[in-house]
Amino acid sequence: MTLETTLAAIRPADEQAMNAARELQARLTKPAGSLGALEELSVRLAGLAGVCPPPLPAPATVAVFAGDHGVHAQGVTPWPQEVTAQMVANFVAGGAVVNAFARQAGADVMVIDVGVGIPLHGGSNLLDVNVRRGTRDMTAEPALTREEAQAAVEIGIAVAAQLVDSGAKCLLTGDMGIANTTPAAALIAVFTGSEPATVTGRGTGIDDATLAHKTDVIGTALARHTPDLADPLGVLAAVGGLEHAALAGFILGAAVHRVPVIVDGVIAASAALAAAAFAPDSVAAMVAGHRSAEPGATVALAHLGLEPLLDLGMRLGEGSGAVLALPVVSAAVRVLHEVATFDSAGVSEK
Amino acid sequence: MTLETTLAAIRPADEQAMNAARELQARLTKPAGSLGALEELSVRLAGLAGVCPPPLPAPATVAVFAGDHGVHAQGVTPWPQEVTAQMVANFVAGGAVVNAFARQAGADVMVIDVGVGIPLHGGSNLLDVNVRRGTRDMTAEPALTREEAQAAVEIGIAVAAQLVDSGAKCLLTGDMGIANTTPAAALIAVFTGSEPATVTGRGTGIDDATLAHKTDVIGTALARHTPDLADPLGVLAAVGGLEHAALAGFILGAAVHRVPVIVDGVIAASAALAAAAFAPDSVAAMVAGHRSAEPGATVALAHLGLEPLLDLGMRLGEGSGAVLALPVVSAAVRVLHEVATFDSAGVSEK
Repeated sequence: MTLETTLAAIRPADEQAMNAARELQARLTKPAGSLGALEELSVRLAGLAGVCPPPLPAPATVAVFAGDHGVHAQGVTPWPQEVTAQMVANFVAGGAVVNAFARQAGADVMVIDVGVGIPLHGGSNLLDVNVRRGTRDMTAEPALTREEAQAAVEIGIAVAAQLVDSGAKCLLTGDMGIANTTPAAALIAVFTGSEPATVTGRGTGIDDATLAHKTDVIGTALARHTPDLADPLGVLAAVGGLEHAALAGFILGAAVHRVPVIVDGVIAASAALAAAAFAPDSVAAMVAGHRSAEPGATVALAHLGLEPLLDLGMRLGEGSGAVLALPVVSAAVRVLHEVATFDSAGVSEK
Repeated sequence: MTLETTLAAIRPADEQAMNAARELQARLTKPAGSLGALEELSVRLAGLAGVCPPPLPAPATVAVFAGDHGVHAQGVTPWPQEVTAQMVANFVAGGAVVNAFARQAGADVMVIDVGVGIPLHGGSNLLDVNVRRGTRDMTAEPALTREEAQAAVEIGIAVAAQLVDSGAKCLLTGDMGIANTTPAAALIAVFTGSEPATVTGRGTGIDDATLAHKTDVIGTALARHTPDLADPLGVLAAVGGLEHAALAGFILGAAVHRVPVIVDGVIAASAALAAAAFAPDSVAAMVAGHRSAEPGATVALAHLGLEPLLDLGMRLGEGSGAVLALPVVSAAVRVLHEVATFDSAGVSEK
């Protein structure tokens, strides 16, 4: 599907299914409301699926979109750019944290080269759809052309469609890209109307001086492009990244297929803002997996009206926080499928 | 093992294994500290096991200790007492939330009648070790004799030993007992030196008038017995419950066998305070599964120096919050077993 046909096909949540889930929750053998956030999550997922109970979120796949960034040249991180490609190899070999978490949660890992700086040598779980070998330096020129940004968005849409066609009942966002918290913070600043200093964080753990410099770099890029939030594709092109654009498409693809997408950390949250700018109803498909330690993630999730399931001080990316939340999402849905009602179990009510 | 031999056998965490875990975390392919609370958890579990990496927490069993409460007669809850036995039947049939969560997490459920008010008709996963058919009303007399309290504690110790002997690598606390948040709040008030109003909550969702009455009932019981926190068995006898005492023993049993025990909500947290009063080093075995909505749980966990893994506004009990946290504990340990090092994966460092 093109971006245009995808946006035209995204629909709001189904209120009837949400009401059915609320009524079912009230009849299950537990005090009303005693499952807290899991009850509301089950209602949202029923609304997305249009049926109560909604499907269990299995099988599930975390799609790790990888890209490099021209703004790396500005010294926003101490990590060398080649680490992007090295970590992609680590994902393909199964040696990264997201792989360990995915084995734990029973999820598959798929790696998508949408913008890595050097050619990669694949594996069956590496998809080569490289749009360009890294973005341009957004402090000097737009990071991407509109055509490149749209190509990346449509790759994300296609990956979501392919996974859903293969049976996936839940999608999870993953990312890899040295320096990619810089465009993420820029996107969050634009889409939430925040100052760079409010949404820029330490990423992999930079020191105070580098943080101040990174914040300045983002301010410089925003001043150069003055992106218009009414034009999400233009924003992604000006100050985004190829994995950010692809993730925005991936989220839109989940929404159009009415499959939940667990949003990981700050990269995914910036992409979720872009998706919501393209199609506000896409928020119904989003589940915030965790609260990243990056300040921009919290700003973005609040803007989207999403409350994260986990809050463990994590700031790794890769999709790690999304995968860690998958069993919680599964548990919330399982309640609607498996828990006895007061009537069926012969349990007295108060 | 008796309570006395158990207490004598509990040892502190192994500092050498903790240091080995810290050093290993620093060599894994991720920025230092980027897994937040999971890194510290992995270090604690290495210290408990005395080896790095510590064993994966599987197989795991949630032990649901059930009991009734004489203080129910004081009108602290609108739920009839017979619901305890009805919910035990629901657990045995596999229809409760804890069963659904346990299927999700791959944990076993074991139900232990340590103090239910009426005889139960079992199943293979129901252990009948009833000490007494409900406690006495603590506002009028001690809830239990010292002998009854000790018998319940030693049942918990024995259940932990039996599970560990059968191969369990992780224990989880569960509970069922209509009115059991009342003795839990009383225990937390004693062990943390808090006022009843600070630690008393709405349990299954009582109204303002019942909450005020429940707080008064706890104050009355504490004024009658003036329990001495230097005598944990005396505290459990005066204002505890049979499932609370058994859970304290279960936690001590986990500690002596150096197996982690995931602590559920406010009932388990009150039992954990008793366990820590018996043996301060038992805290090394405790993992706080979640932050219950009950205020006493937060007070108790803070007193123990434990930070909960999940915070989802849950207040169900049964062990639901502990089981929901099990995949997070597994993920934290898996990192130490499975993630590649910078050297082994050929990834550059900053």
